[in-house]
Amino acid sequence: MNFDENPHRRYNPLTESWVLVSPHRAKRPWQGQVEKLANDERPAHDPDCYLCAGNTRANGEVNPNYEQVYVFDNDFAALLKDTPDEKYEDGELFLAKTERGVGRVICFSPAHNLTVPEMSEEGIRAVVDAWVDEYNTLGAKDFINYVQIFENKGFVMGCSNPHPHGQIWAQSGIPDEPLKKQNAQAKYWAKHNRSLLADYLEKELEKKERVLFENEHFVALVPFWAVWPFEAMLIPKRKMARISDMTSEERDALANAYKRLTVKYDNLFETSFPYSAGIHQAPTDGLPHDEWHWHFVFYPPLLRSATVKKFMVGYEMLANPQRDISAEKSASILRDLPEVHYKN
Amino acid sequence: MNFDENPHRRYNPLTESWVLVSPHRAKRPWQGQVEKLANDERPAHDPDCYLCAGNTRANGEVNPNYEQVYVFDNDFAALLKDTPDEKYEDGELFLAKTERGVGRVICFSPAHNLTVPEMSEEGIRAVVDAWVDEYNTLGAKDFINYVQIFENKGFVMGCSNPHPHGQIWAQSGIPDEPLKKQNAQAKYWAKHNRSLLADYLEKELEKKERVLFENEHFVALVPFWAVWPFEAMLIPKRKMARISDMTSEERDALANAYKRLTVKYDNLFETSFPYSAGIHQAPTDGLPHDEWHWHFVFYPPLLRSATVKKFMVGYEMLANPQRDISAEKSASILRDLPEVHYKN
Ligand SMILES: O=P(O)(O)O[C@H]1O[C@H](CO)[C@@H](O)[C@H](O)[C@H]1O
Ligand SMILES: O=P(O)(O)O[C@H]1O[C@H](CO)[C@@H](O)[C@H](O)[C@H]1O
Repeated sequence: MNFDENPHRRYNPLTESWVLVSPHRAKRPWQGQVEKLANDERPAHDPDCYLCAGNTRANGEVNPNYEQVYVFDNDFAALLKDTPDEKYEDGELFLAKTERGVGRVICFSPAHNLTVPEMSEEGIRAVVDAWVDEYNTLGAKDFINYVQIFENKGFVMGCSNPHPHGQIWAQSGIPDEPLKKQNAQAKYWAKHNRSLLADYLEKELEKKERVLFENEHFVALVPFWAVWPFEAMLIPKRKMARISDMTSEERDALANAYKRLTVKYDNLFETSFPYSAGIHQAPTDGLPHDEWHWHFVFYPPLLRSATVKKFMVGYEMLANPQRDISAEKSASILRDLPEVHYKN
Repeated sequence: MNFDENPHRRYNPLTESWVLVSPHRAKRPWQGQVEKLANDERPAHDPDCYLCAGNTRANGEVNPNYEQVYVFDNDFAALLKDTPDEKYEDGELFLAKTERGVGRVICFSPAHNLTVPEMSEEGIRAVVDAWVDEYNTLGAKDFINYVQIFENKGFVMGCSNPHPHGQIWAQSGIPDEPLKKQNAQAKYWAKHNRSLLADYLEKELEKKERVLFENEHFVALVPFWAVWPFEAMLIPKRKMARISDMTSEERDALANAYKRLTVKYDNLFETSFPYSAGIHQAPTDGLPHDEWHWHFVFYPPLLRSATVKKFMVGYEMLANPQRDISAEKSASILRDLPEVHYKN
């Protein structure tokens, strides 16, 4: 089958869903919305930034003069820890439950003008350590059963502050997307007594066409079922249910892979590349979750240039995600990009 | 349960998925991206528009001097009818199938400067008739099993041309979103021998809090499980599997409801209100599909003003859709808006 010629659908065995691929459509002229470029000239400290060290936040709290990573409760969290436990039900068609949770913000560095691809591996390693600590601490609370770690980067992603940071939303329920992945992995585990992603990785390392790079403990690849134009995944070679299972070397290797992938991203259109990225891993509900093989996914919207993104609208909202460039083509473009940041 | 105070999750029985509602979060200040306003000053005929009557399209074809509705094959269709039938499979983890289909574009009116809320009900009725014709003609082809009718409106929705128009993507497979709705409706039908949406509608008409308006044949409401800030649905009062089941009066009533809803939308922020909208109905696979109750959904992204939209990123992409205003609050805002267009 010619993936770069014929419209086709691909199956995502992790979420049990499909994506429509229309490779011939990449030729279509673009007359639509053009995104604003991120302003790359930022000071190392911005007195108006509520994430910079020493500054005062909306609620009057003052950030400490942190030197690496700083984590605090989100001042506008979508989830609150003191929500009473209530349920609303009327037949089968009306069902709602209150949800308890915690929202955390992680400043990746005091330097307002850095982003992950420009940080040192040591600096990124401190972010990884903070994620593990947060996963452990939040996960230990009895009302927290799932911890979603993520980074929203760029104005085009609705991120209102360019200061390098990420978020954590931890909650009592297990959200739909990780739940789908859990169900698919559990079915595969029950059938084969093997990890779905370990088997997938084995084949991808043989096929090579979607692999971007690897280090001792991680593989970076464009998944076969990628939805976003330059979607990618970091998969640990060893099956681990959760990030807290990592050895110290594995944490270093994750920092290395995170940096290398985001450097390639920035180099693609020579711009600070926007994305939403996050970690899918085992819930913190006290169960062993042998089926889980945690992984780090990147969903970047840019398609053709620093200012033209893919819109997931119309058909995509109503029917099915759709992409205009094959995963193999995207992988070969990303693979060939240098690993030195274009600004250096 | 206080829907306007406490964070909670709501269940969507049509797609069997959840939405996180964080009503307290609507107070959060917005410092992020501001959208461009649509330029409302357009000529009735634009010589550079490839959808205007008499103009030449990218492929050299000349549009006729149409007077109401004009339908043609999309020059950059994502689906092609001559795709060979092929399959790629490697174990359980790699699965792809070629997909055949047709892309159509529907100009709603020759007037370049109109949009649905500014069109006459007669003009909109002609659009409804064209949809039914297309559904019948495309659906009759042996390689077409599903017909997705939709309208993408506004630059913020990736729509590259403000000329009033919609699209149809018709294909051999049944896309994920309508398939989810089909499965849920089929389960409900098997269990109760009743339409899920008819039962839902009955309760909503009693409760009233999410109903926007009704006419003889349709109800407009903000569904209990709405994801987008001002999401709405038009539901026919009579259970019909497909739009071709409508009587002539029902088609008129649909045109009336489509106009009334979009007038309210434009009046909300006194701007040409962007959205993706589309019809979910029975596949054209030759089966009766008694379970289906077709409906028309509207997914508009604007949240706080004509230039501030809701971003479905980060948590939403990785975990679960999330909204900051309750469906009831949105419904009460929309319900109270006048039904006369603000420009009149
Ligand atoms: O077909 P258009 O209007 O050029 O393109 C728009 O709608 C399509 C169908 O929903 C999407 O796939 C595109 O991403 C979007 O930009
Ligand atoms: O929390 P922020 O960065 O203000 O807001 C951003 O990320 C959130 C979490 O993904 C989303 O719910 C918001 O729509 C988005 O604008």
